[in-house]
Amino acid sequence: MKKSLEELARIIGGQIRGDRNVQIQGVAKAEEAKQGDITFAISDKFLDKAMRSQASAVIVPLEVEDFPKPIIRVKNPRLAFAQILEIFTSRPRRMSGIHPTAIIGKNVVMGRNVSVGPYTVIGEGVKLGDDVHLSAGVYLGDGVSIGEGSFIYPRVTILDGTVIGRRVIIHSGTVIGSDGFGFVRKEDGSYYKIPQTGKVVIEDEVEIGANVAIDRATLGETRIGAGCKIDNLVHIAHNVVLGRNVVLVALVGISGSSTLGDGVILAGQAGVTDHVKIGDNVIVAAKAGVTKDIPPNQFVSGFPARPHSEQKRIKAIINRLPKLVKKIKELEDRLRDLKGGQKEV
Amino acid sequence: MKKSLEELARIIGGQIRGDRNVQIQGVAKAEEAKQGDITFAISDKFLDKAMRSQASAVIVPLEVEDFPKPIIRVKNPRLAFAQILEIFTSRPRRMSGIHPTAIIGKNVVMGRNVSVGPYTVIGEGVKLGDDVHLSAGVYLGDGVSIGEGSFIYPRVTILDGTVIGRRVIIHSGTVIGSDGFGFVRKEDGSYYKIPQTGKVVIEDEVEIGANVAIDRATLGETRIGAGCKIDNLVHIAHNVVLGRNVVLVALVGISGSSTLGDGVILAGQAGVTDHVKIGDNVIVAAKAGVTKDIPPNQFVSGFPARPHSEQKRIKAIINRLPKLVKKIKELEDRLRDLKGGQKEV
Amino acid sequence: MKKSLEELARIIGGQIRGDRNVQIQGVAKAEEAKQGDITFAISDKFLDKAMRSQASAVIVPLEVEDFPKPIIRVKNPRLAFAQILEIFTSRPRRMSGIHPTAIIGKNVVMGRNVSVGPYTVIGEGVKLGDDVHLSAGVYLGDGVSIGEGSFIYPRVTILDGTVIGRRVIIHSGTVIGSDGFGFVRKEDGSYYKIPQTGKVVIEDEVEIGANVAIDRATLGETRIGAGCKIDNLVHIAHNVVLGRNVVLVALVGISGSSTLGDGVILAGQAGVTDHVKIGDNVIVAAKAGVTKDIPPNQFVSGFPARPHSEQKRIKAIINRLPKLVKKIKELEDRLRDLKGGQKEV
Repeated sequence: MKKSLEELARIIGGQIRGDRNVQIQGVAKAEEAKQGDITFAISDKFLDKAMRSQASAVIVPLEVEDFPKPIIRVKNPRLAFAQILEIFTSRPRRMSGIHPTAIIGKNVVMGRNVSVGPYTVIGEGVKLGDDVHLSAGVYLGDGVSIGEGSFIYPRVTILDGTVIGRRVIIHSGTVIGSDGFGFVRKEDGSYYKIPQTGKVVIEDEVEIGANVAIDRATLGETRIGAGCKIDNLVHIAHNVVLGRNVVLVALVGISGSSTLGDGVILAGQAGVTDHVKIGDNVIVAAKAGVTKDIPPNQFVSGFPARPHSEQKRIKAIINRLPKLVKKIKELEDRLRDLKGGQKEV
Repeated sequence: MKKSLEELARIIGGQIRGDRNVQIQGVAKAEEAKQGDITFAISDKFLDKAMRSQASAVIVPLEVEDFPKPIIRVKNPRLAFAQILEIFTSRPRRMSGIHPTAIIGKNVVMGRNVSVGPYTVIGEGVKLGDDVHLSAGVYLGDGVSIGEGSFIYPRVTILDGTVIGRRVIIHSGTVIGSDGFGFVRKEDGSYYKIPQTGKVVIEDEVEIGANVAIDRATLGETRIGAGCKIDNLVHIAHNVVLGRNVVLVALVGISGSSTLGDGVILAGQAGVTDHVKIGDNVIVAAKAGVTKDIPPNQFVSGFPARPHSEQKRIKAIINRLPKLVKKIKELEDRLRDLKGGQKEV
Repeated sequence: MKKSLEELARIIGGQIRGDRNVQIQGVAKAEEAKQGDITFAISDKFLDKAMRSQASAVIVPLEVEDFPKPIIRVKNPRLAFAQILEIFTSRPRRMSGIHPTAIIGKNVVMGRNVSVGPYTVIGEGVKLGDDVHLSAGVYLGDGVSIGEGSFIYPRVTILDGTVIGRRVIIHSGTVIGSDGFGFVRKEDGSYYKIPQTGKVVIEDEVEIGANVAIDRATLGETRIGAGCKIDNLVHIAHNVVLGRNVVLVALVGISGSSTLGDGVILAGQAGVTDHVKIGDNVIVAAKAGVTKDIPPNQFVSGFPARPHSEQKRIKAIINRLPKLVKKIKELEDRLRDLKGGQKEV
């Protein structure tokens, strides 16, 4: 497929400088770009690399006025890159229609253009919107509903009663709606299971990585807000509520009943204890452990998590501890000398 | 379904104050309770909320003598809550019988009332007790045995030779009996695989979360004691032995050949190194890393894990480090002044 | 099966002292060895145990000259143990041939002696080398290729375009080729997905544990070098490159575009941030977090990871902090006394 620079500029909403008829047939990093490719310079410091590349055109930030190659000037070059990559990406082949080996329960309602892969099992009373794609070996429990345009990769397990919005993407191996981890300790030290009778609700435009586990609520619901992006191997416990556009990086764990505001970001291997409220737009550093409520718009790190500036100051002192110990030793010595001196007086 | 307060009191072993004929049809948190519901007050501080709720009756601790609504007085309100929730919970529909697409190996022995879901694969020589439920897409390797009443959720993988007790629950995506991670480094830097020929034994009443991995032993067995409760995404290495009623919260990892005593609790993202012994009733805080043996009945935290009281004292000092640095500076200044003063003498 | 000591010595390349005709029928730890078994003493301190065991022969290090039982002297007793264990291990039964329920896409090319388990789904254009074993419920996307002798356990998901080398072992529940976690933040706080169009390449002799997730590259490839050994529940992000013989222990996470040199070892729950280079033979301690490039041959620990010797010195001081605080207090007191003394003068 080929597109003229003019067509690309229209799609990404950018301004052309140079030959608008250049034909583009691919997108590549500057190092790997060939003639006919478009490349991109996210910021000034990548301009030189782009200039020396084989690429036939370059996406640049608005600040760039002149360039030896044809350019498209945009506000957000990373976004434009993603959009152009999408144009030149060949989608994975979608199976279409219902594979004859799919097992479909009673009272299942399907929209138009639904596809169901081989060995997929669908429970009773399931509702699938238009253009829903279920790959091979997916399991949907009774009463699950999935909104239009959602794409479920092979071997995803979605248990009874889960509600999934529109244009949601769920990667392989993920389990949604497993029981919350709730037990009452009895006097003999054994545990009595608290029935987990709630459900999981996943709003529109959410993407969930591979081998994630999201537990159903004890009562009520576990809720993943619209636009959340969840990486691989993340654990989300019962009754957790995520706001809109929350980002959870790989190996994060969120304990029961905690709530995260809109725009919260948790970096890799971070954790949140139970019954905690994290305000909007909080950023939690990698490996941090949140043990109490965090007000909005903070950047926290460490365990227990606290404002990163405090953490940094303390870390800096910790790094200087060997010097500090030496200094205390010197003070002691000087004090001893001093006392010695006094005695002589 | 409706139950009178009297019936409920009998089931949970509690004493009624007030109208014993009130008809109860559901259980809910105080905030969400409607007329006809029973709610609960785990302790004194929840009594007020329960009083102002719409609930028709309340489960309270024994200390409560008087209350404006009908009450059931019990020793452990949380336990009573779990028991009553169970009464009002509609169980997920169980498939019954053997689905025609299930593939069953030679010499499989099944008890009464076993159910096997679609596309489940059962190896040779497998033994299933009465009332065992295998959901869709389960895999059981050769020689696996599962005790009566155990419930295996969709897409669980249980490999050759695994022994599972009675009333065990295993959630989706979990893998039991994968090879232990054992290799010998050769002189050229490559690794030679140590065959993993042991097995996994899971005792009665164990519950295992979603996407957990439990490795078989190199020789002998990996053993999960009766009553253990394991959360999502937990890793248990080869030859690990868990005592009775051990609790492992999400994203915990236990390395090879370590043994945990009865009643041990590991909070989320904690880890245990290999060949370590943790005594009975030890509690390991979230994110802690156990690097050596821990005697019974301790609460440890941090990495390396040590008694939490020590850890707390040190953390407190670390938090005061900026002040401490200031103080040392002051000491220096005063000492300098002092010396200066002496010179004047 | 029985083997004479002479046959075993030939296989493991060792020298016999004592009766070379002893018949061996199994291998066991000293504690559990019966007559007819061979046991092993990895180093001097295990010799006594081996001597007092029931074993009929012992594998010992070269240093051992004399022993009351027949011995095989080798350079690396652990390696010899693994090799002998392999001889006496009965392999799990391999299904042979293509199960009639396997679904195989167009233009699939298979070598000799390939086996495909029940309910396995193979996409279009897949290539399988000689002796490849796909267990039950495996999913291979379009264009996947797997080299000779590789063994794929039940319920592994390998997505479109993944290239897998020879003699690779992949355990159950693992997902290879899920989308990289790449998004561009838009002004309204929502995220725009960056298409993930690259692939995953896994070289020869790699072993991958259970419930691992390895993402495909955004552009280009995510690459796992020959001989790498990856434990359970590990996360490997898009465009990561692992050198040869890298070891990743359970619950490790490697962020996007980071590269690890040959022979690197990451202990359990360690993490690596994105775009970092770790040199050859670096060892990263458990729970450490690598935040910047690490030169070759270092042992690092902590978060942020730094040379372990520094880390240890600082940890030692931290442990002495309570004493240090006391000492500062004493200094203050003495200084006050001193000043008091001066006033009296």
